[in-house]
Amino acid sequence: MALSNGCSPVTRVAIFGGTHGNELSGVYLVKHWLNHIGEITRAGMEVTPFITNPRAVEKCVRYIDVDLNRVFDDQHLRKEITPTLPYEVRRAKEIHCRFGPKGSDQAYDVIFDLHNTTSHMGPTLILEDSKDDFVIHMSHYIQNSMAPLQCTVLLLDHPGMKYSTTRSISKHPVGVEIGPQAHGIVRADILDQMRRIVKYALDFIQYFNEGRVFAPCSINAYQVLEKEVYPRDENGDLIACIHSKLQDCDWQELNPGDPIFVTPDGKEIMYKGESTIYPTFINEAAYYEKNHAFTKTQKVTLQAQTLRCSSIQQ
Amino acid sequence: MALSNGCSPVTRVAIFGGTHGNELSGVYLVKHWLNHIGEITRAGMEVTPFITNPRAVEKCVRYIDVDLNRVFDDQHLRKEITPTLPYEVRRAKEIHCRFGPKGSDQAYDVIFDLHNTTSHMGPTLILEDSKDDFVIHMSHYIQNSMAPLQCTVLLLDHPGMKYSTTRSISKHPVGVEIGPQAHGIVRADILDQMRRIVKYALDFIQYFNEGRVFAPCSINAYQVLEKEVYPRDENGDLIACIHSKLQDCDWQELNPGDPIFVTPDGKEIMYKGESTIYPTFINEAAYYEKNHAFTKTQKVTLQAQTLRCSSIQQ
Ligand SMILES: [Zn+2]
Ligand SMILES: [Zn+2]
Repeated sequence: MALSNGCSPVTRVAIFGGTHGNELSGVYLVKHWLNHIGEITRAGMEVTPFITNPRAVEKCVRYIDVDLNRVFDDQHLRKEITPTLPYEVRRAKEIHCRFGPKGSDQAYDVIFDLHNTTSHMGPTLILEDSKDDFVIHMSHYIQNSMAPLQCTVLLLDHPGMKYSTTRSISKHPVGVEIGPQAHGIVRADILDQMRRIVKYALDFIQYFNEGRVFAPCSINAYQVLEKEVYPRDENGDLIACIHSKLQDCDWQELNPGDPIFVTPDGKEIMYKGESTIYPTFINEAAYYEKNHAFTKTQKVTLQAQTLRCSSIQQ
Repeated sequence: MALSNGCSPVTRVAIFGGTHGNELSGVYLVKHWLNHIGEITRAGMEVTPFITNPRAVEKCVRYIDVDLNRVFDDQHLRKEITPTLPYEVRRAKEIHCRFGPKGSDQAYDVIFDLHNTTSHMGPTLILEDSKDDFVIHMSHYIQNSMAPLQCTVLLLDHPGMKYSTTRSISKHPVGVEIGPQAHGIVRADILDQMRRIVKYALDFIQYFNEGRVFAPCSINAYQVLEKEVYPRDENGDLIACIHSKLQDCDWQELNPGDPIFVTPDGKEIMYKGESTIYPTFINEAAYYEKNHAFTKTQKVTLQAQTLRCSSIQQ
């Protein structure tokens, strides 16, 4: 028998919406669940829906002062509260106290953070740790439940990102990213996909807590490598946009020499990398200010051992 | 022979981008044309590309203080300049001086104002006057040139809207509205459609100025009736979203009893009107704050007599 991977029961779960205040599927669902908790209630678990950036939600903007999803690192969380502290850093300290402290035993077990993208990524789970068997099994369960609809796994274990997301204060952080959806709107189809992902995730946790044993599994994932930047002129203005052959082609292979940008004069700019990559977050609206045209990934396989809840392990 | 519709030569044309600062197709094209004027240069015409709301463009937001596209009415244009005057009203006064004065002989002949929408409207021309034979002929020419791609005509002669748009300072105002495109991004396919519309429009004006006679024509249009509002609770929060059977169905007939919204509990809300309408601007992001779920329209036919340039009329 395979080595069993004992894991503590998962009793405290939070579902975050509005980390980016204009990504409305999560905002809409979390507001609904706050008034209709039954849908996300599961025996033996405390499940907390929570709006993380209420001021950004109120104004329907990504953030007020700084991106909330990039400030959950030591440097920001340790800052003293002063009148000039950016709103999101103050808010991060509050969330850290309420759902953390990050890295401690008291931290929440699982946080799902609900996001939307203007990219054609479809339903996507974002994991931060390739060794987290619990989350790999959960992803596997969700993927099977969502089929035939594809639910892609993005592995964000890039040092610059991993430790600063809002969800990273929990023991098992899971990002849920669904697109294409314009920021500032709610689409019924995207809402339904997000809701199903949360339902299947909570079902999985309940089965896990009840003692179900999950046989070893593996899943395909796309591991973040680096970003591709936009071509700009000396004023910072775009001088090319995403090529129509790349637009909407998230997760499809991109080879050296394939067109990635096109200028207004019709000049094509080719991908100059040395090997095949799999682009994602192609033409995400919020990434223009980061000068981030798309994210390069590589295919990896994530493997997990037998999973069982340690409290009822034999 | 049909009555000829004498019309002065069209010598001054402006192309506006960035009236809404986060609708990037027009911003991108106008910035390009400012540095590459050749593409829009035509003999005998002055064609001026112009960014109307540069501060909103800079911040990539719809507007800074108020919607620029709603303040070109007497009430706003007559306001005195004071330190508390909203930025867009100040800007409207400048644009009115530069391209107007509105209603005067000195006003520009034609202004194209370039917009994007998150709604699935496809390429759309927005006219403000059902009797403007010049613009009806131009629309007819553009539609034929765009075929087989459909280019729809929306007739916005609603009293509440007609006289307040940015383009309304010109003798022949034409809105160009293309979607779906998320605000804050540039899509190559949408860009190409917008660029073709502007090219065909300028070609048409040139042929007109050169003396080409355009035989009587008629076009189908959708005339704006009123808006449908979102269902909201007492806090102003949405309690239903656009039904998946209505989403992306701009210009398709909607009959009494058809579903238009769905609540998170799956309850469908039906259209309660008394006759068939043709919805458009379905799920436009910028209209959430206006509580405007979609625009109702009815089908009309616009007819134009023979058109010829009066300066060379026999
Ligand atoms: Zn987000
Ligand atoms: Zn607009």
